[in-house]
Amino acid sequence: MTVSLPQGFRTHTGNCGIRADRDDFLVVASDVPATLSAVFTRSRFAGPSVVLSRETAAAGTGRAIVALSGNANVATGEDGLRDARAVRAAVAGVLGAAEQEVLIASTGLIGQRYPMTSVQAHLDALRAPFDGADFTAAARAIMTTDTRPKTRSARCGAATLVGVAKGVGMMEPNMATLLTFFFTDAQVESADLDALFRRVVDRTFNALSIDTDTSTSDTAAVLANGVAGPVDLAEFEKTLGELALDLVKDIARDGEGATRLIEVEVTGARDAEQARRVGKVVVNSPLVKTAVHGADPNWGRVAMAVGKCEDDTDIDPGRVTIGFGDVEVYPAPPDEARLSRVAAHLKGDEVLIRVGLGIADGAFRVYGCDLTEGYVRLNADYST
Amino acid sequence: MTVSLPQGFRTHTGNCGIRADRDDFLVVASDVPATLSAVFTRSRFAGPSVVLSRETAAAGTGRAIVALSGNANVATGEDGLRDARAVRAAVAGVLGAAEQEVLIASTGLIGQRYPMTSVQAHLDALRAPFDGADFTAAARAIMTTDTRPKTRSARCGAATLVGVAKGVGMMEPNMATLLTFFFTDAQVESADLDALFRRVVDRTFNALSIDTDTSTSDTAAVLANGVAGPVDLAEFEKTLGELALDLVKDIARDGEGATRLIEVEVTGARDAEQARRVGKVVVNSPLVKTAVHGADPNWGRVAMAVGKCEDDTDIDPGRVTIGFGDVEVYPAPPDEARLSRVAAHLKGDEVLIRVGLGIADGAFRVYGCDLTEGYVRLNADYST
Repeated sequence: MTVSLPQGFRTHTGNCGIRADRDDFLVVASDVPATLSAVFTRSRFAGPSVVLSRETAAAGTGRAIVALSGNANVATGEDGLRDARAVRAAVAGVLGAAEQEVLIASTGLIGQRYPMTSVQAHLDALRAPFDGADFTAAARAIMTTDTRPKTRSARCGAATLVGVAKGVGMMEPNMATLLTFFFTDAQVESADLDALFRRVVDRTFNALSIDTDTSTSDTAAVLANGVAGPVDLAEFEKTLGELALDLVKDIARDGEGATRLIEVEVTGARDAEQARRVGKVVVNSPLVKTAVHGADPNWGRVAMAVGKCEDDTDIDPGRVTIGFGDVEVYPAPPDEARLSRVAAHLKGDEVLIRVGLGIADGAFRVYGCDLTEGYVRLNADYST
Repeated sequence: MTVSLPQGFRTHTGNCGIRADRDDFLVVASDVPATLSAVFTRSRFAGPSVVLSRETAAAGTGRAIVALSGNANVATGEDGLRDARAVRAAVAGVLGAAEQEVLIASTGLIGQRYPMTSVQAHLDALRAPFDGADFTAAARAIMTTDTRPKTRSARCGAATLVGVAKGVGMMEPNMATLLTFFFTDAQVESADLDALFRRVVDRTFNALSIDTDTSTSDTAAVLANGVAGPVDLAEFEKTLGELALDLVKDIARDGEGATRLIEVEVTGARDAEQARRVGKVVVNSPLVKTAVHGADPNWGRVAMAVGKCEDDTDIDPGRVTIGFGDVEVYPAPPDEARLSRVAAHLKGDEVLIRVGLGIADGAFRVYGCDLTEGYVRLNADYST
């Protein structure tokens, strides 16, 4: 499938020497200055890419995003910061932009410097305007252990939105997920873009967890260059939200070793924050994840997981309800017929676990995947 | 190996109909009233065994512990509470003790009632004094997915201490671990016993995590019947602490699917609490656990895990040090010679990960195990 870019955006993909045999370098640039919003990992080990890109996000405008894959450039000290500055400066130079108008992101191994000789050679040969047409190639250039590129696009009035994401492990984004970028030719003021993007990320990427490990490099960003003119803001936010949610589900389905998407819907909570907390503890429980992998209607493990919210003293087992798909399994234990409906639901590609807390009307839905031998094998073998 | 009980304790083991083909019922009773301390899971889904046993712990004295394995009696509502009361009352009746002098514990599947017909038949046939001599049989009677019984014994002056533990999954105890009991003929006042037992549990069972899942049934208890007379309290606490730590390591080594014991030692922290928090986040990281399983010196994953302590804003990557065994790997990257020493260390049965924070002198050591295909297989297949 070919995904076309919104008007006024151009891409460059190539190999800068990190990867042996595939693209590892991406630039997406706007012909004109764009408004920009971005959110980042809260990791204490955030790398220089995140440090530099926070400057860009603070300004609220940008011209381009450059992303390197296969090397996270994290825990590389002052050398790593210098390397990141050099990449950013070179891309800005080619585009005739200010350095801080270029958002830089990096993903891959931690603790190694970029191979700067080959990176510099690639930068020296870079010429604008870029000629990349297929956005799927952009998605491919930022993949690490992803098994497939993840892009989505949508229309909003006269404007086009496209999104790209990568990341299948080290994945419990707290402010964002491991590299996701959105580009649109809609015209949206910087303050509006920032406010709505944070709301969208909160309900989508921050509701995702593959394996509870938070990356040092998480970056989510959106660029709006205004070429297609103004849009209805509410419709734009809704469209961007749907696009982001589709990407979240793409990521969860492609979670390392995953065979099933798990959605946990929590209702009846004191507020949305409590519902999110309970949802996360359920979707992150290795015993729930392995039960889903085994298609085992072991609802006791969901009860166990809810019980882990020890400080939520208003959670009362006497008011909790648990269901799989549309079948309730607690407090009324399912009979044989209902149990077989549960088992059938668990054998599908998408598993819905419903938890009712019976406290008030707070609700939240989180996304994850099952835990499989494949996850262990992949990560025991993924070598430094 | 035969482990003998301290003076004045007797055991009964048998089958009460939960398990098809092995012991599932244990009583350990003291001939005389004993001082008692116990701590429990903080789960919101704590079962009736925990609810009843909190009464016993509050009194500070007890005569016996009864434990049932294969069924946790959790999320079973009012019926489950009645069943637990019936078991406790019957054991108390046989011993001529008050009901609340009997601490009850239960472990196994969640969400099913005891098979009360066969349980009641077993209770009806129970006669005191009990004649069990080998404490290993007691350890065996409380096993679930454990592959081996876990008992330890020690001497303290004229007194003997024995400890027993079970539990290999659903294991991140917060106040205690899934069933561990200690018996001693030392004479220790109730208040002293409680204070020192809490300190011991805090440094041992509360420093353990197999899979981040906290059981609904965690119970740790100690009975001291005084038959051997008084002991030096400091020496007693030290001995009990060593016994508990040995059991913690036994549990971690037998963690579901585990092939390696992981110890994470955090030093240079603001205080012991911060050191514990950082240690837990490292020992619980699935990417660290799989790297250890693959004997991969992927120290970047340790950095990533430390970075997850987002609210510890005093953690500065510029001051952090990371080592495996006695080899430092960050900030100074290891050369080939040191890297091969790290790899050799990682191939052993016990892996030590050292993290220095460079803030102050707080320290804590936590215990866990690697994450393997075996864990996934076991828990995908363990059926409701």
